[in-house]
Amino acid sequence: MIGLRRLSLNQATVRNLTAADAIRLCVKHEIPGIGLWRVGLAGTAAAIRAAGLHVSSLCRGGFFTHADADARAAALTDNRAAVTEAAELQADTLILVSGGLVPGSRDLALARRMIADAIAELVPVAQDAGVRLGIEPLHPMFCADRCAITRLGEALDLAMRFPADAVGVVVDTYHVWWDSQLAADVARAVGRIAGYQLCDWVLPLPQDVLLGRGHLGDGFIDFGLITNLVLAAGYTGYAEVEILNAEIWDAPADETALQVRSRFADLLG
Amino acid sequence: MIGLRRLSLNQATVRNLTAADAIRLCVKHEIPGIGLWRVGLAGTAAAIRAAGLHVSSLCRGGFFTHADADARAAALTDNRAAVTEAAELQADTLILVSGGLVPGSRDLALARRMIADAIAELVPVAQDAGVRLGIEPLHPMFCADRCAITRLGEALDLAMRFPADAVGVVVDTYHVWWDSQLAADVARAVGRIAGYQLCDWVLPLPQDVLLGRGHLGDGFIDFGLITNLVLAAGYTGYAEVEILNAEIWDAPADETALQVRSRFADLLG
Repeated sequence: MIGLRRLSLNQATVRNLTAADAIRLCVKHEIPGIGLWRVGLAGTAAAIRAAGLHVSSLCRGGFFTHADADARAAALTDNRAAVTEAAELQADTLILVSGGLVPGSRDLALARRMIADAIAELVPVAQDAGVRLGIEPLHPMFCADRCAITRLGEALDLAMRFPADAVGVVVDTYHVWWDSQLAADVARAVGRIAGYQLCDWVLPLPQDVLLGRGHLGDGFIDFGLITNLVLAAGYTGYAEVEILNAEIWDAPADETALQVRSRFADLLG
Repeated sequence: MIGLRRLSLNQATVRNLTAADAIRLCVKHEIPGIGLWRVGLAGTAAAIRAAGLHVSSLCRGGFFTHADADARAAALTDNRAAVTEAAELQADTLILVSGGLVPGSRDLALARRMIADAIAELVPVAQDAGVRLGIEPLHPMFCADRCAITRLGEALDLAMRFPADAVGVVVDTYHVWWDSQLAADVARAVGRIAGYQLCDWVLPLPQDVLLGRGHLGDGFIDFGLITNLVLAAGYTGYAEVEILNAEIWDAPADETALQVRSRFADLLG
């Protein structure tokens, strides 16, 4: 099992907190890692170091699929900024959510080529900064509008075009648990797993399907199984609990941190 | 292109009609095929023949995943009845929606073994009745509660354990459009495509994600591309428009039939 010393709390799980408060929460609850989003990060790198926390991921770069060259250039500029931020934070990986169909187009192959081309442009930038990119496949229900990379195998095939220290994949249980090829694809991801995120698949899906995620154990995912696959593939990083859920956001942050820690300890500690 | 002479209207698209009224609607709008659900079918076979329609599918058998032997036996009994009904209707295929996780279990591999075992039990029944089973992969967002078979490749691997005239696969654009392996899997499905269903992926998903489907052209799916793949794999059956959508159910059935026909003609006629 992966153990509490490799637990990380993604900031999105306690979205109503400032980064500074999320850092304090992790320290208070002895959660050694934190996953950050690119909002209000000024001064955060110093605060993280002062707190002795480790940044398991920065979310996110990506959204590479655009209909015109100006928008693609703007996306690259934004991704360069994200790389700089990831370097400052010494994050294990900059997570890439690749983007869905190109606006006005139903051509999935085009979207996927555009994603591959954009990552190829970003790789030298990331290498110069010492940042590892992490391609995250999203659940196929987000294929049209958020991420045309829908399976771990697809993310892995894309990552493998580049050096392993420059580009890896991010395994998020919520997005990949259903895939009958998951075990095979995790097994061939040795040396390529740049991040591991956990939350549960709960039903019914809410009106906004982005927010339908649950605490570990409240849903249908076998976390022991997937974690063992990830560990067997040699992953040595953090297990980051990232739960996008409006009810959990409304709960007291201390209660959420306690739940995250105890569920993790029960299932994976 | 596939052409209007191979258009079929699935009854679920006009769910508020009786089977008899759905048959009349197809005749009136010169839609030569119909897909049926197992509700109120008494007398339907004779009415179908009198109307000169062809039954492209009967929906559905399946739901094979149960925690106890009694429930599994009941499911087999129900599936035997579905085979009998499909034979009476001379349906091209009896669609199988396989069932999700076994109640109380997070073991996807167990669910998939149970599905394979149940289909193996059903195959001789179907062969005796001259009915072809069609394994339908459902979108991964239905994996937990409706169908653990989430990709065409998975359905195909399962179908291939049995004779091609006994077990095929059903390609439903809504469920498979996102899959980067779709073209490869359709190509290896030569002789195995037992049914082809169409509706569009529209956003946002509604509260009940079963009902988030749209008229052809209202969403993100490239129907020309997928239809060409299916035809290139030698499929000679009907293209069945099946749209589960509460707003479309509330529309006048004639209007719906006209929309189905004209969208199909524009995109695929």
